[in-house]
Amino acid sequence: MILPKNSRLTPEQLAEVTAIVTEFGCKIQPIVGAVRSIYAIVGDERDELMINRLEGLDYVERIDRIQSPFKLMDRRSDLANHRLKIGHVTLGEDLLIIAGQCTIDPKNPNYYLETSLAVKEAGANALRGGVWKPRTNPYSFQGDARSLEILMDASRRTGLPVVTEVMELEHINLALDAGVHVLQIGARNALNYSLLRQVGRAIAGRTTAVMLKRSIHSGPLAEFISAAEYIAAFGNPNVILCPRGTQPQLEGYRNQPDESITPLLKEKTWAPVVVDPSHSVGKAAYVPAAALAAVAYGADGLCIEAHVNPPHGIGDDPKQAVTPSALAELVKRCRALHATLRPPAAARA
Amino acid sequence: MILPKNSRLTPEQLAEVTAIVTEFGCKIQPIVGAVRSIYAIVGDERDELMINRLEGLDYVERIDRIQSPFKLMDRRSDLANHRLKIGHVTLGEDLLIIAGQCTIDPKNPNYYLETSLAVKEAGANALRGGVWKPRTNPYSFQGDARSLEILMDASRRTGLPVVTEVMELEHINLALDAGVHVLQIGARNALNYSLLRQVGRAIAGRTTAVMLKRSIHSGPLAEFISAAEYIAAFGNPNVILCPRGTQPQLEGYRNQPDESITPLLKEKTWAPVVVDPSHSVGKAAYVPAAALAAVAYGADGLCIEAHVNPPHGIGDDPKQAVTPSALAELVKRCRALHATLRPPAAARA
Amino acid sequence: MILPKNSRLTPEQLAEVTAIVTEFGCKIQPIVGAVRSIYAIVGDERDELMINRLEGLDYVERIDRIQSPFKLMDRRSDLANHRLKIGHVTLGEDLLIIAGQCTIDPKNPNYYLETSLAVKEAGANALRGGVWKPRTNPYSFQGDARSLEILMDASRRTGLPVVTEVMELEHINLALDAGVHVLQIGARNALNYSLLRQVGRAIAGRTTAVMLKRSIHSGPLAEFISAAEYIAAFGNPNVILCPRGTQPQLEGYRNQPDESITPLLKEKTWAPVVVDPSHSVGKAAYVPAAALAAVAYGADGLCIEAHVNPPHGIGDDPKQAVTPSALAELVKRCRALHATLRPPAAARA
Amino acid sequence: MILPKNSRLTPEQLAEVTAIVTEFGCKIQPIVGAVRSIYAIVGDERDELMINRLEGLDYVERIDRIQSPFKLMDRRSDLANHRLKIGHVTLGEDLLIIAGQCTIDPKNPNYYLETSLAVKEAGANALRGGVWKPRTNPYSFQGDARSLEILMDASRRTGLPVVTEVMELEHINLALDAGVHVLQIGARNALNYSLLRQVGRAIAGRTTAVMLKRSIHSGPLAEFISAAEYIAAFGNPNVILCPRGTQPQLEGYRNQPDESITPLLKEKTWAPVVVDPSHSVGKAAYVPAAALAAVAYGADGLCIEAHVNPPHGIGDDPKQAVTPSALAELVKRCRALHATLRPPAAARA
Repeated sequence: MILPKNSRLTPEQLAEVTAIVTEFGCKIQPIVGAVRSIYAIVGDERDELMINRLEGLDYVERIDRIQSPFKLMDRRSDLANHRLKIGHVTLGEDLLIIAGQCTIDPKNPNYYLETSLAVKEAGANALRGGVWKPRTNPYSFQGDARSLEILMDASRRTGLPVVTEVMELEHINLALDAGVHVLQIGARNALNYSLLRQVGRAIAGRTTAVMLKRSIHSGPLAEFISAAEYIAAFGNPNVILCPRGTQPQLEGYRNQPDESITPLLKEKTWAPVVVDPSHSVGKAAYVPAAALAAVAYGADGLCIEAHVNPPHGIGDDPKQAVTPSALAELVKRCRALHATLRPPAAARA
Repeated sequence: MILPKNSRLTPEQLAEVTAIVTEFGCKIQPIVGAVRSIYAIVGDERDELMINRLEGLDYVERIDRIQSPFKLMDRRSDLANHRLKIGHVTLGEDLLIIAGQCTIDPKNPNYYLETSLAVKEAGANALRGGVWKPRTNPYSFQGDARSLEILMDASRRTGLPVVTEVMELEHINLALDAGVHVLQIGARNALNYSLLRQVGRAIAGRTTAVMLKRSIHSGPLAEFISAAEYIAAFGNPNVILCPRGTQPQLEGYRNQPDESITPLLKEKTWAPVVVDPSHSVGKAAYVPAAALAAVAYGADGLCIEAHVNPPHGIGDDPKQAVTPSALAELVKRCRALHATLRPPAAARA
Repeated sequence: MILPKNSRLTPEQLAEVTAIVTEFGCKIQPIVGAVRSIYAIVGDERDELMINRLEGLDYVERIDRIQSPFKLMDRRSDLANHRLKIGHVTLGEDLLIIAGQCTIDPKNPNYYLETSLAVKEAGANALRGGVWKPRTNPYSFQGDARSLEILMDASRRTGLPVVTEVMELEHINLALDAGVHVLQIGARNALNYSLLRQVGRAIAGRTTAVMLKRSIHSGPLAEFISAAEYIAAFGNPNVILCPRGTQPQLEGYRNQPDESITPLLKEKTWAPVVVDPSHSVGKAAYVPAAALAAVAYGADGLCIEAHVNPPHGIGDDPKQAVTPSALAELVKRCRALHATLRPPAAARA
Repeated sequence: MILPKNSRLTPEQLAEVTAIVTEFGCKIQPIVGAVRSIYAIVGDERDELMINRLEGLDYVERIDRIQSPFKLMDRRSDLANHRLKIGHVTLGEDLLIIAGQCTIDPKNPNYYLETSLAVKEAGANALRGGVWKPRTNPYSFQGDARSLEILMDASRRTGLPVVTEVMELEHINLALDAGVHVLQIGARNALNYSLLRQVGRAIAGRTTAVMLKRSIHSGPLAEFISAAEYIAAFGNPNVILCPRGTQPQLEGYRNQPDESITPLLKEKTWAPVVVDPSHSVGKAAYVPAAALAAVAYGADGLCIEAHVNPPHGIGDDPKQAVTPSALAELVKRCRALHATLRPPAAARA
């Protein structure tokens, strides 16, 4: 849909526009209005290059696109019936609870094992645990590959699948070799297309899943879902979308909570949505309410930082981690609410 | 707390700073650090003028204030035990449901009466109904004082208290004379201090309450609560804070939903919080999930647009209003969740 | 332009849509695309009510409007040749410099007179001076009508026109009676439509102008220009648009500088644009660069806080006010740059 | 600086706080205020772990940090006198103009060579040219390593240094082997710490520079400068900071222009600042004004998209690229303004 700056295109302008879209196999259909005319592009208008060419014309106000830039992740694609299973939980049916420490402390492996057993007891279905950590400060602790063994040991002892963040190809390879079940792409790498391709290629042909965090800036929905498309394009569609708060923050929280994006995502994509309230609000005391709100908005799961002894955690844990007993209470409330929401509150008549 | 640009103040700078705070009855206490020194202001640092004077100094990086600019609305004030009652609902105990049409159509009074009876049936405790409307477009329908009679008639027939927006002194006087129970200050007037003073003065000595919408921009918490302080300063503390979404919007919604601000407000003020999910998300289909999320975050009430026949509403109704049956379902879910949250999920150990 | 959720409207949906637009004197023209069809509204689509009705339909994804909601302020209106003169400066020809104290201190009238003479000497063409002040803190100094005499006295002694902010009808009347040349509507009242109507009505038939600050939230261009339309609708089109920074702030400044909006405004409206860099950056040291940037972006004028002795100012002056000598240097640079920009850098071929 | 939730810490809380900071070699000095006490951390408070531990305490309102998390890039570091030279231009002395196509079209190498010769003629000191491109849409053109030869060929023919974006280690190695002078880290990888470390390690011991784009979200200044610290930590401090607009966009532009960040950066770091107005505003017609504004704010250089035939460019060129003649005019204006700003307008007395 081409909207001209003036009330209508001159014959010369119309000819130029027509020539461009013809190059891309499309046609122009003018719609003559009382005050202003517009020009519909008839054909497949998904090519960014054609759109850029048209937007570059001086006499064009803007181009409205009406087709999806992602095809595999689209709610209307054949994959819409794909069901992703993490451990014993089928996403879309039961509420998935991923919980555990932000960062595994390689010097205190017992904490991670204790926390893992405790969060299982509290109702978690999967374990989170950071082996490598992106840190703003270059001189802060950046993680340690030895933590990978601690992570997998906890997985074996609890029988739960594990989630860990990868930031480069070497991490991906080490994590897959160790048997990590879900690779996490963090918010700072949410648009790192090289990494998205690497992870998509690496999980192709496996049962491994990827949990893709939302970018820190509150980007367009299509940008978020297209990032998932990068991964799925290699053949394994096990991608989970994970809102985790955006910037600028809501004063008092670490970020601007964004669990409310869930119904909007679900209108456009079939991908399951697991919300991370811990990074969103950034403080343990606020996590239970934010977790419950995510369920209210229709989230398929939650990813929550927990620690047996929060003040002795590293990474974000001292601030963000809830105790196992707070987690147990939170999980109980969230599962109860989730159960009442079938069919979901946001369903459209 | 004064943070200097350089590692410490020179003796001359310290003398200047000391002279300024002395004018306002305060003292300076230097704290000598290993790398940098800071300078505490000992005394009452709430005076904006003193802060501005200090911030104006070239060698000052910033001033951190550690005291509240509002005293009546502060959670620690003597008013913290004040309980506001709207109709039969005591805020903080039962969930208040305000519902009704965005705008009363003076040409179709029956719609408003029908809607009012229907929302009461659906569980509403109070009626909303716009008599005067702030409109972006100067040529759109701006409201009509005749609608006030329709509003009060609906109040009498349902036995429910009513809420309506006022935008100038004349509206305030007309609404009070007619017996409106809750005056609403809209988001566009949230920082219109002349109106806040007028409304505070007008309700002094009455039982009338004011529902103060949050400003469109995501301003500081202190700005929101201080606006309430303007009203309460005249003696009637019946002020309700109403988050209603902020700009920039979350793509797909009318605004950025902000029910998550509720726990943050409650840490600072005793004022009840009633969330407006209708303006926040801007589309009826999204309202139920947003309402439930507000309750999850600890809201004391909800303000929801409803209409017996949404496509025939005026104002925002065709888009935003839920039907009475959707409202009934929503209220049932929200009351059930509210009941499970005593003590609240966000309570701190 | 109606974009349906699905690939096309069903015959029943098309009939319903057609019925709605017909009520408003419009027609529907379907455009059948390869993948998706869209539906053009032929006729005058400016009625908000029609748009709301259409947006309220479940099967409609969104409505794109292609006509301006403001007609007097539109760049294509007959008023486009209207030239506004403030004192001796014709906006659009010479650079207008409004300067002076944020707030007039009624206890220290000499400061204001001294500052006024000094800013005239530094090159200012008009004086700013706050008589009444909107303050976040209800217990801060709120202004004093006696300052109005000081303001007018400075105007007489310098021969310069004066600008002052009005926040309610009483201020408008007092200011007009005193002979104030430009009434300012502040950022907190930028969408206070009652005040906009009052000021529009009050200046009708006079030569008085209104300087309309941009709202604190970074709202749509159309919202800003429509607010000006409210004023102009009463017959006096002397409205100046004044960007002054928005929230959320750029860390380190008081606001997010927004002088860059100038070329975008000028594409849509003929109204002159006067930028306020003082409120934008919020600190005197940053003002000169921000002022120059505003000129680079094509501003027709600047509104700058200045004070003969900034640390002794009240209101924002201790932080924001530049000294007369800094102002003189700034004005020199800005006029030099302005002179080189004719025709403007942003002119489109 | 520890700010407690209540008016002061209890003896037990003070003991706990003291124990934590003692672990990190710091001490606590209480400052007893009239209304509230605060607690200064005396010692090196830069350790994120200590801060997190303290922020995790229930009775702590917040922690204010007063030390820089970056030490090499700090304006007060020994590197502050480091002067970076790109081609014949010493940053901080002459205005650096980087110009050229967004993306090199491997199928039309002549365009790139023509553009390169033309931008040199127009006054550019360095060439930009995209070999690999991050694209939102996974099915769009992603770049082609063969373009690297075209880029280096243009460098040889013009005698100008070249800038190209790298997104993974393989790109870094290929670009360095080919002799690229400036590696660009794009906005989507601005916080990709793995890539920042890889590029820092790769340029150590070389004269190669890195141009680091600002992240898409308007993050804290410290986050931006710390990302540069990641690179410099390996020994080569040739890092340029490049603001390029942030999200959410200013309606009408591609992004929110952010050249105004320049004076704020320069207060904290000695790193040169080169602004990219092309990505900021996103449309060729707006670029000249934005470029001039960047110079007004004190930028050391500009990075501008240009193309001999914009409508036939690929990538962003059809929209964003200015023609060589527009570039020549723009460069002339910018150099003239830059020359008048020595000493800079934003200099502090």
